[in-house]
Amino acid sequence: MSGKLVVIGLGPGPAEHMTPEAARALAEADELFGYGPYIDRAPLRDGQIRHPTDNREEAARAAAALERAEAGAKVAMVTGGDPGVFAMAAAVVEQIEAGPASWRTLDVEVIPGVTAMLAVAARSGAPLGHDFCAINLSDNLKPWPVVEARVDAAAGAGFVMAFYNPRSKARPWQLGAVLERLRAILPPTTPVIFGRAACRPDEKITVFTLAEADAEVADMATCVIVGSAETRIVERPGLPPLVYSPRFFLPDLPAGRAR
Amino acid sequence: MSGKLVVIGLGPGPAEHMTPEAARALAEADELFGYGPYIDRAPLRDGQIRHPTDNREEAARAAAALERAEAGAKVAMVTGGDPGVFAMAAAVVEQIEAGPASWRTLDVEVIPGVTAMLAVAARSGAPLGHDFCAINLSDNLKPWPVVEARVDAAAGAGFVMAFYNPRSKARPWQLGAVLERLRAILPPTTPVIFGRAACRPDEKITVFTLAEADAEVADMATCVIVGSAETRIVERPGLPPLVYSPRFFLPDLPAGRAR
Repeated sequence: MSGKLVVIGLGPGPAEHMTPEAARALAEADELFGYGPYIDRAPLRDGQIRHPTDNREEAARAAAALERAEAGAKVAMVTGGDPGVFAMAAAVVEQIEAGPASWRTLDVEVIPGVTAMLAVAARSGAPLGHDFCAINLSDNLKPWPVVEARVDAAAGAGFVMAFYNPRSKARPWQLGAVLERLRAILPPTTPVIFGRAACRPDEKITVFTLAEADAEVADMATCVIVGSAETRIVERPGLPPLVYSPRFFLPDLPAGRAR
Repeated sequence: MSGKLVVIGLGPGPAEHMTPEAARALAEADELFGYGPYIDRAPLRDGQIRHPTDNREEAARAAAALERAEAGAKVAMVTGGDPGVFAMAAAVVEQIEAGPASWRTLDVEVIPGVTAMLAVAARSGAPLGHDFCAINLSDNLKPWPVVEARVDAAAGAGFVMAFYNPRSKARPWQLGAVLERLRAILPPTTPVIFGRAACRPDEKITVFTLAEADAEVADMATCVIVGSAETRIVERPGLPPLVYSPRFFLPDLPAGRAR
């Protein structure tokens, strides 16, 4: 009766985006923990015990899963996308560090998945084709001036930026403030992609320029990708545009971009 | 006889890391293009035509695939990891932009996959659990001072960093120079992960501190993750350590970290 905790990334959408490794780990679990909507998305078999929780209770959820694994259960912690990107893997390791010494001897595995920015990028071309960064816009987790400093540093150095958790009812103004900030650094023609529910049936990918991008388009199911000054939009007759960031950085661009 | 080009990410390792969407697209293709070792890894069926190419010929390879799609073939461009991260999707869209107008009417699809940094992160804990960036260390594609400026900006602003293509026979000194640079910005205890062939049978994940990290450990099959000052190593008796970046950024850290 040796327990195990597997932290599983379901990928961005239905089962066809989940790796076979993740599907197998899910099938082998006795008990599933996770944010309710993710557990609802996981293909379950009879006899599996579900422990759906609220979105905010990450530390308690991780500790509860570790307790069950220590008691001998085969436990899966289920997350959307990739568990290591602004999701449950860090919360689990945090609890292992803070918890009883016995948790450091548990069998713990993290199974990667396709994270939202890769899904949005694939559905819109290749906007992450050059150096890029991922920033969690939630200021529940860090002071807002830290977000501002990172946005300034990334845009100033020529990174493409993917913004996770860009907007919610409780955080309505943050994305707008970031876009306003970026307008002072990047050209008005810089592409901005709002990728909502990428790879799901209600997928909606919209491409704007930075000048016209409206933060109101985003919600919690949206991942926003803002290009660098090199990122380009390729228009196509009768088809959605393709957005890409060239693999090459041309040194004859306007000064000040690559400080 | 309408052709199609699908740019497919195989994921980091054997088929159990490839999404069902990618597997289906691969099975439906008549012709496969890609770097030889990736095509060798793809599960093929009888009758599929293989066009393996050298690592360097990305623009020509993309153009050849688009020509075959225009001629009516169902073409797959095969890449390891995710096609949008320092891989073939950007090369394909570049060619669509530069090529004949008819290429803009082609049916082109990009199918995401698990990129190397997500695989390395999963195998080592949750080092990408906070804001992070991905930098291609190859200076075939951009001037070296641009790499230096981006490394300085990312480390100074508190991003965890994932370095792709860190080292090759033709580029032996670049990773060492980056690590040396980072020693002037980050604490000597900052975790550094060398993730070689993550998720493959010859996987080797090694964790160092920045003070002791030796660039010689890396090769072209390695993705290197360097933590921020917040990233932590959790030692475990009889098990490999877990590395994670806390989800929360604590504002009482030493000044200068979060400019």
